[in-house]
Amino acid sequence: MRLPLGFSAGATRAGIKPSGKPDLALLSSETPCAWAFVGTLNRASAPCVDRSRSLYAAGGALQALIVNAGNANCATGAQGVQADRGMAELAAAQLGIPPEAVLTGSTGVIGQPLPLEKVAAGLPGIGLGLEVEPFLEAILTTDLAPKKAEATLSNGSRVVGICKGSGMIQPNLATMLAYVLTDAEVAQDELRRGWKGVVDCSFNQVSVDTDTSTNDMAVLLANGAAGAVELGEFWRAVEGVCVSLARQLARDGEGATKLLTVRVLGALSDAEARRAALSVASSPLWKSAVYGNDPNWGRVMMAIGKSGVEMRESSTRISLQGIPLFDGRVLPFERSAVSAAMKVEEVIVEVDLGLGEGQGTAWGCDLTEEYVRINALYTT
Amino acid sequence: MRLPLGFSAGATRAGIKPSGKPDLALLSSETPCAWAFVGTLNRASAPCVDRSRSLYAAGGALQALIVNAGNANCATGAQGVQADRGMAELAAAQLGIPPEAVLTGSTGVIGQPLPLEKVAAGLPGIGLGLEVEPFLEAILTTDLAPKKAEATLSNGSRVVGICKGSGMIQPNLATMLAYVLTDAEVAQDELRRGWKGVVDCSFNQVSVDTDTSTNDMAVLLANGAAGAVELGEFWRAVEGVCVSLARQLARDGEGATKLLTVRVLGALSDAEARRAALSVASSPLWKSAVYGNDPNWGRVMMAIGKSGVEMRESSTRISLQGIPLFDGRVLPFERSAVSAAMKVEEVIVEVDLGLGEGQGTAWGCDLTEEYVRINALYTT
Repeated sequence: MRLPLGFSAGATRAGIKPSGKPDLALLSSETPCAWAFVGTLNRASAPCVDRSRSLYAAGGALQALIVNAGNANCATGAQGVQADRGMAELAAAQLGIPPEAVLTGSTGVIGQPLPLEKVAAGLPGIGLGLEVEPFLEAILTTDLAPKKAEATLSNGSRVVGICKGSGMIQPNLATMLAYVLTDAEVAQDELRRGWKGVVDCSFNQVSVDTDTSTNDMAVLLANGAAGAVELGEFWRAVEGVCVSLARQLARDGEGATKLLTVRVLGALSDAEARRAALSVASSPLWKSAVYGNDPNWGRVMMAIGKSGVEMRESSTRISLQGIPLFDGRVLPFERSAVSAAMKVEEVIVEVDLGLGEGQGTAWGCDLTEEYVRINALYTT
Repeated sequence: MRLPLGFSAGATRAGIKPSGKPDLALLSSETPCAWAFVGTLNRASAPCVDRSRSLYAAGGALQALIVNAGNANCATGAQGVQADRGMAELAAAQLGIPPEAVLTGSTGVIGQPLPLEKVAAGLPGIGLGLEVEPFLEAILTTDLAPKKAEATLSNGSRVVGICKGSGMIQPNLATMLAYVLTDAEVAQDELRRGWKGVVDCSFNQVSVDTDTSTNDMAVLLANGAAGAVELGEFWRAVEGVCVSLARQLARDGEGATKLLTVRVLGALSDAEARRAALSVASSPLWKSAVYGNDPNWGRVMMAIGKSGVEMRESSTRISLQGIPLFDGRVLPFERSAVSAAMKVEEVIVEVDLGLGEGQGTAWGCDLTEEYVRINALYTT
């Protein structure tokens, strides 16, 4: 996938991932970018998240990203803060820009010192090109699939989004390393105003395992190379790209065999609808039932109830793969037929709370034995 | 285990469990009991929880429990409310007491009509005896082990606690069917004042899978048959019994091979310490690591961080099986030695946040492939 105008990117094998795969990625813009940022609310946040948040508060422009995979550089003490700053300084020196224009990102195992000397040794070998794939592939960890999406606006400017993430996914105001790039010209203030709303409807509605990462961030960069755009069209395109990435993230959840989409209508507010949807999409019991093609919809009811949103059993309707199962009362259904309808790539649950106009969607995946196997032995 | 004085209990096979095991249980006190109650905060609560809450608010005494297993009688509409009341009325008629003195409980699959005719047919066959086991075994579902604990006070009065629960366990102000019986004489007001605090330190600190049941309740009954007691001693005994049950509950979590105990010190308050401990005990990633004997303590840091409690990396200490792994900085450790130390029945994590005097403990279990297998095919 071609990068938007004015962006270039590349990657190399720096020896941080034990697998020997590419693990150090660099992205650069010819000109300074307006940007918007959301970082994890995990209070054990990594130095890269803390530094990004400070840069964002300072309000300067951004011109490059440097990201390593295989080491989260989190819970690594003062040494970790230095290593993070060191990554930015090395990239800045190589690109001839100030360190404050470079955003860092790290993903991988928590609590192991980041070998900055490997970053220093690998960085000069990165050649920058016009395709996004080398950068994207270098930032993956347990991901099986790279996640990318794009949109083209009517003035020819483009929005390109990429992200990584497969486990430790229950974003809390961001998700694991999502970068959305555009050559559209959009003012810094406008980007800041709109980005959080997009993240709330996309990345924040994904759950793989309810564990919120320490290193999550979602970044939107606009370098303006393709000129001004109509803002309504711009934000619809950005939201479309982010929702596509969110779905890819959920589908590639560790061990997943299916995408689980949960749509809630009739809630008192959109926020309550999103909360209820996310509760269903993240329930281990319902996710296990989805894996087993078991239409045990009582677990959907349980998960809505535990979310704490306003609900009444008598006004609640639940359907699965378009088949009504509950309508204020238990509906008769052919278990084997519904089970057969669940044997597909995407299982869709629709819940109408029958109380108001609030709507929201969340994305998750089934819970499988493979999730356990992957995570029982990740560091050793 | 002998019941306290004045209590008798029994069970029968009513044909509600597909397995044909005992599934209908009855408990009676010779005299009316003072009682205390905590029910689930899941908003899709079952009729038995709603009815119990109403009875508790009405303030009358209690003299019997009737409990079925195999069917949760939840999300079953008006018919479910009638069936629940019907259970109480049938038990009341058989015991010659008013229906308002009978507490109902149901556990099993959500969303299937409860066959009241089976309860009516089975109930007359229940013979009441002085041991707790027949009652306890009849209320189990996916539990592998019955959970029971007892304490004897200095005046000879006794506290006997039983509970069931193996999945859908993240109690939110109660847990899945816990009954604590005593022949100590304790006033109704005193029981009401103390019970919530005990539940908060025991059942509410257990997680198997973060899914809060629709049918949870924890009930304390005192019939006074053994006379008055010193209240400090009484509450210590009740708490000891409940903590023992909480540990048994976690150890028998669906698919579990180990008990996971998480102790947090140095928090700003006891409530924050309990919240942080529960977050670690319920993290799927840390639970998977415990299963794999993998000392990936970065996931402990992540789980504390996502709990939202006040923390600072530099003042945080983490140890595993007594071995220090983090002390504001990464400590060197022999991975294979720590992994070997994890190959035991109980894995103990200690976290000192280094900020205050708050302390708390939580109990969970490892996450295994077996959990997924059990829950992928529970109804079909």
